[in-house]
Amino acid sequence: MVTIALDAMGGDRGPSVIVPGAMEAVGGGVGVVLCGDRELIEAELGNAPRDGVEVVHAPEQIDTHEEPAAAVRDNPGSSMVTACRLVREGRAQAAISAGSTGAMLAASLLTMGRIRGVHRPGIAVPLPAHGAPCVLIDAGANSGSRPENLRQCGVMGSSFAEEVLGVSSPCVGLRSVGEEASKGTPEVVEANRLLAASGINFGGNCEGRDALSGEFQVVVADGFAGNVLLKGLEGAGAMMIRELRAAANSSLRAKLGGMLLLPALRGLRDAVNPETYGGAYLLGVRGISVIAHGNSSEAAIRNAVMVAARGVDHGVIERMAQRLAKPVPVSDLQDGDPVNTVPDVQESEIGETAT
Amino acid sequence: MVTIALDAMGGDRGPSVIVPGAMEAVGGGVGVVLCGDRELIEAELGNAPRDGVEVVHAPEQIDTHEEPAAAVRDNPGSSMVTACRLVREGRAQAAISAGSTGAMLAASLLTMGRIRGVHRPGIAVPLPAHGAPCVLIDAGANSGSRPENLRQCGVMGSSFAEEVLGVSSPCVGLRSVGEEASKGTPEVVEANRLLAASGINFGGNCEGRDALSGEFQVVVADGFAGNVLLKGLEGAGAMMIRELRAAANSSLRAKLGGMLLLPALRGLRDAVNPETYGGAYLLGVRGISVIAHGNSSEAAIRNAVMVAARGVDHGVIERMAQRLAKPVPVSDLQDGDPVNTVPDVQESEIGETAT
Repeated sequence: MVTIALDAMGGDRGPSVIVPGAMEAVGGGVGVVLCGDRELIEAELGNAPRDGVEVVHAPEQIDTHEEPAAAVRDNPGSSMVTACRLVREGRAQAAISAGSTGAMLAASLLTMGRIRGVHRPGIAVPLPAHGAPCVLIDAGANSGSRPENLRQCGVMGSSFAEEVLGVSSPCVGLRSVGEEASKGTPEVVEANRLLAASGINFGGNCEGRDALSGEFQVVVADGFAGNVLLKGLEGAGAMMIRELRAAANSSLRAKLGGMLLLPALRGLRDAVNPETYGGAYLLGVRGISVIAHGNSSEAAIRNAVMVAARGVDHGVIERMAQRLAKPVPVSDLQDGDPVNTVPDVQESEIGETAT
Repeated sequence: MVTIALDAMGGDRGPSVIVPGAMEAVGGGVGVVLCGDRELIEAELGNAPRDGVEVVHAPEQIDTHEEPAAAVRDNPGSSMVTACRLVREGRAQAAISAGSTGAMLAASLLTMGRIRGVHRPGIAVPLPAHGAPCVLIDAGANSGSRPENLRQCGVMGSSFAEEVLGVSSPCVGLRSVGEEASKGTPEVVEANRLLAASGINFGGNCEGRDALSGEFQVVVADGFAGNVLLKGLEGAGAMMIRELRAAANSSLRAKLGGMLLLPALRGLRDAVNPETYGGAYLLGVRGISVIAHGNSSEAAIRNAVMVAARGVDHGVIERMAQRLAKPVPVSDLQDGDPVNTVPDVQESEIGETAT
């Protein structure tokens, strides 16, 4: 039995979306724990069967205007922190929240802790690429990533694509401003060298457009650049859908064409729908942590639970830990490589880029 | 008479595309000077009428593998540098090249020089936004922009949108990671303050997705983030078109639907076509400098000539210089504001981000 803890109060519409969305995923070996105001959750549950469903009363909410790490420390009984705590206590294997990204980042880090050897967790977002999804990591947990952070993102993203999304031997690209290994900032050039020696299927540098070309199944980027890329792609997807809709309403002829084309376009719509994978995944913490969109629908929450459950089933955290622990071949090391040093994340760094 | 100088040898296919593209734009007060190997250019011109067409023999080409500033200095007689030199000498008012971005950036800077008061020129790219185009600046000339650089990009982008693209009182946004003026790096926070006091229609911070929403007609970003955003948008546009085409070929029914919908979709195709505006515009140099895509078609080159000619007609360089020279109200200045200091661009900085 896989158990997924949900912050039932998070998101724009709280329990009215989170509870029915979670309920759709229950069954087939998947159970949920709904954390939040018991009365509101019970009202949403109504007469639904309670097999595989547990409610944990946690009525407080994180103040999204507070600085994330402080907000988490000040509200240990909040629905979001409670969901994360259940993972640390082993009562659940994954936590999902549609609340503030910065707060969920801080709650996951401070509650679950990091996988041994991970300097900085990164946010992984599955993007709709040609053929198979492409995992963008880091989509905004950190800015000013060091080469070793980027290497770890590559290893974690690769494990995630393989174990959770089912992509075999995913090809990992490093976001730079040119294909040659020598292109980019000194950090990127060094990260290229580390990634090439890390035992994953490293395909070299890539550009922003390659995130969707299907050539790479993982794209590694510093959190600031990753966040810019993600938001740009979301904007482009929304624009295309809007213009497509407008075109299909511009004349009777176009309307008929749109109706005939519609079934074939469903795949495209699903592919660019940010809800297909339920949200973003914080990789590098000791547990599966999912940051769902604030305006998630029931379907998005259901998908988030299913994807997280698949990750648990495939032991993604354990596999990630193993791969991160695997020593880099000594011949590939250079003086000063930070392989055995694990600097602590400063609390002030938490959520500095996340939006 | 507006005269546009073209590097006839640039781009993937050189004179065979540049010459016919330029010829399509000749007439109605627009003339062209084709710089390159005279024999090759004459062969392309054939028996076409020569009114408004001049050929300047400049057979050398820039070595794209060399460091841009060095390549420009080593090849003063190259077709690209010749086109830029004609602008400095007043024989043309704009230069267009489909060659390497870094080299054209260096050639324009070293040959035309900067507008008085401009610290660092920025690359402006018109994006297809909802309703009107949106100018992204800087799309990759610099990385590590200082607040005053970002302010100048806002002023230059605003002039460009107004005088060249015909957008009245364009709303300028600053790319950050949140809407509040306090969000972002210290540089972005300071740039927000400077932009608000710069006398343009400043709409505050925006996110990557806002570049296409139609809310902003200018989006200011540091060159690295701008480049990431641009490449991401190009990738997203290409993916959508590809998927749309695949959907419309997936069945007989879909094929019929696609045929009926096609005329209504032409607007969308034009909107996401990077060739609509002919390329990127380097703003801040003393002349109009256009960096066309390497794989530009004849239509893209024609559009680049037309857009540049419009910019000349509207005196965009003079207006930009006036607006940049306009003093910031003293009440808005703070100690240490760099309003009257004009540090030199280091040659080593030229083209550091450009790809």
